[in-house]
Amino acid sequence: MERVFNFSAGPAALPTEVLEIAQMDLLDFQGKGLSVMEMSHRSEEFLEIIEQAEDDLRAILGIDANYHVLFLQGGATLQFAMIPLNLSESGDAVDYINTGAWSLKAIEEARNHVEVHVAASGENNGFTSVPDHSSWNLNRNAKYVHITTNETIGGVQFHEIPDVGDIPLIADVSSDFLSRPMEVNRFGLLYSGAQKNLGPAGLTIVIVREDLMGKARAGTATMLNYEAHVRANSMLNTPPTFSIYVAGLVLGWIKKKGGVIGMAIENKAKSDLLYSVIDASDFYNCPVAKPSRSIMNVPFTLGEPTQEANFLRGAKEEGLVNLKGHRSVGGMRASLYNAVQMPAVKALKDYMERFERAL
Amino acid sequence: MERVFNFSAGPAALPTEVLEIAQMDLLDFQGKGLSVMEMSHRSEEFLEIIEQAEDDLRAILGIDANYHVLFLQGGATLQFAMIPLNLSESGDAVDYINTGAWSLKAIEEARNHVEVHVAASGENNGFTSVPDHSSWNLNRNAKYVHITTNETIGGVQFHEIPDVGDIPLIADVSSDFLSRPMEVNRFGLLYSGAQKNLGPAGLTIVIVREDLMGKARAGTATMLNYEAHVRANSMLNTPPTFSIYVAGLVLGWIKKKGGVIGMAIENKAKSDLLYSVIDASDFYNCPVAKPSRSIMNVPFTLGEPTQEANFLRGAKEEGLVNLKGHRSVGGMRASLYNAVQMPAVKALKDYMERFERAL
Repeated sequence: MERVFNFSAGPAALPTEVLEIAQMDLLDFQGKGLSVMEMSHRSEEFLEIIEQAEDDLRAILGIDANYHVLFLQGGATLQFAMIPLNLSESGDAVDYINTGAWSLKAIEEARNHVEVHVAASGENNGFTSVPDHSSWNLNRNAKYVHITTNETIGGVQFHEIPDVGDIPLIADVSSDFLSRPMEVNRFGLLYSGAQKNLGPAGLTIVIVREDLMGKARAGTATMLNYEAHVRANSMLNTPPTFSIYVAGLVLGWIKKKGGVIGMAIENKAKSDLLYSVIDASDFYNCPVAKPSRSIMNVPFTLGEPTQEANFLRGAKEEGLVNLKGHRSVGGMRASLYNAVQMPAVKALKDYMERFERAL
Repeated sequence: MERVFNFSAGPAALPTEVLEIAQMDLLDFQGKGLSVMEMSHRSEEFLEIIEQAEDDLRAILGIDANYHVLFLQGGATLQFAMIPLNLSESGDAVDYINTGAWSLKAIEEARNHVEVHVAASGENNGFTSVPDHSSWNLNRNAKYVHITTNETIGGVQFHEIPDVGDIPLIADVSSDFLSRPMEVNRFGLLYSGAQKNLGPAGLTIVIVREDLMGKARAGTATMLNYEAHVRANSMLNTPPTFSIYVAGLVLGWIKKKGGVIGMAIENKAKSDLLYSVIDASDFYNCPVAKPSRSIMNVPFTLGEPTQEANFLRGAKEEGLVNLKGHRSVGGMRASLYNAVQMPAVKALKDYMERFERAL
């Protein structure tokens, strides 16, 4: 068996060491004679797993005690609805910053539930940069301001947390969660699907400040009410136990690798290497403005779009897979999540240079 | 390694053969060089997995083409809200049959969204039997009738599908799904959490008739709208890919073991054996009336409740685990899902008889 270099945008590569532990434990978790998949979520064994995962996440990100950590389901897409339903009434105004495809999805869903004001948008420049914070037209009465810290499709990333005063800042951090340090206490609420840097699809992490509890609209479904989940310690019903277990293993791996500072150093080096190939070339092009370039998702185009199929085929032959760009934008995309290690990026760099030379 | 006999009510035992395949494939699915957890949900490889799982489920249950099969998240508890939000307006009336703890949870959540009429209840007899269908006080104008085919906590099960005329019959089949044949075309909608007979927690199956689409209330969150999931082939966002893969393996296992007829024969034999020990004893007691006894969850009490801790300790020493009854009712409970094989039940029978004799 040889593992490929997997540049998938998500579900994405997981650390081989993590999968090896999961494999070893799969039929018999630590001599208990059963799989984590077969454990009651209320068993001592599983409670230890979920508590350890929460402790590790709190330690890694430095999460203060006035923030709750929730292990939920439904992905970021369910959060797009839960946020307005929990933090606003239908007549309220809320601010969204539009930086691309995922911001737009958040905006469209929120429009089903609340008056959405787009306070800034990257649309005019084709979503190639994060709108400069000084230009944001924020509403002083907004119930919250929503940003998408990293656009998985567009490859545009916030490199500084904007200051929005006392209004709660809400962020979809799905595709850069745990890739770098993040000052959680600058946010009211952070949410992330697990399937990029944390674990298998089907798990969603929400980190929410205590003072935002208790504001859900009347008639909100219980499963969409943050406070209900907080009161039940994420066990309002059976949580996705196996995904939580794998996420816990990934958190242990991140700790061992130097935490989010270790991740950030590595991710910066990986993305610098790839952008340097692109920028040094006349053949490859990245449309994103340098100050907004993502350290997680690197979109690039080929000088001759007719070469795309050849590029992908040749890459696959060398074990470099999932480089095709999102169907909505085309081109190529290399996702460099935490589990994608430097040798994978070096192999990609090498392949890209050889491919260009051979044309 | 020795695998225990696991009588957990859920997440529950999975077939050892299934876990062995998942273990073998964990780092390298069929020579592709990556784990199923690491695959894009839109990759060819994963589409093949989810399509095969749906085909197998349709074949096993004989699901007609006018029913959609959805792979969702959020468990039965999210369905408790989705059903009224998709099939009724807030002023409508809906009928629920109350057979115990899970029916009650469905009723309580529905009350947040619609006028709930409890058309029959087992409350008067302590939920020890399914209310006789002739006594049901159904409302001709109800938008639907909701039943819980098997009460996981109470051990009460419907052994016949009630005839409710033209009103759509909706059923929570979480804890007896795939345990026996089920005439899907007698229902408008069936739903099941996976973590009993199908796979890991975090996956919910919904089987819904086409004519019930398009009725969601205005303003329903997209993730709570059945039609949106149908239109997107369960890929409105990233589905719980690894759980779907394991569920697919379980479906393959069920097919190989004779389908739901094979499961039903085995489940009947297993539960008959356990009830026979209980009924032959003056020490063990099952409170459920014989015609309503579940073939999946067998609750029983000990003649001397002070012996409970001893009973559980001794059982664990023999590798018989998760026999403690639900915290809301106490006593014991043995869950005999498909993956709990006859040798496990025989070992439990043997232990129970020895425990009684030794008193």
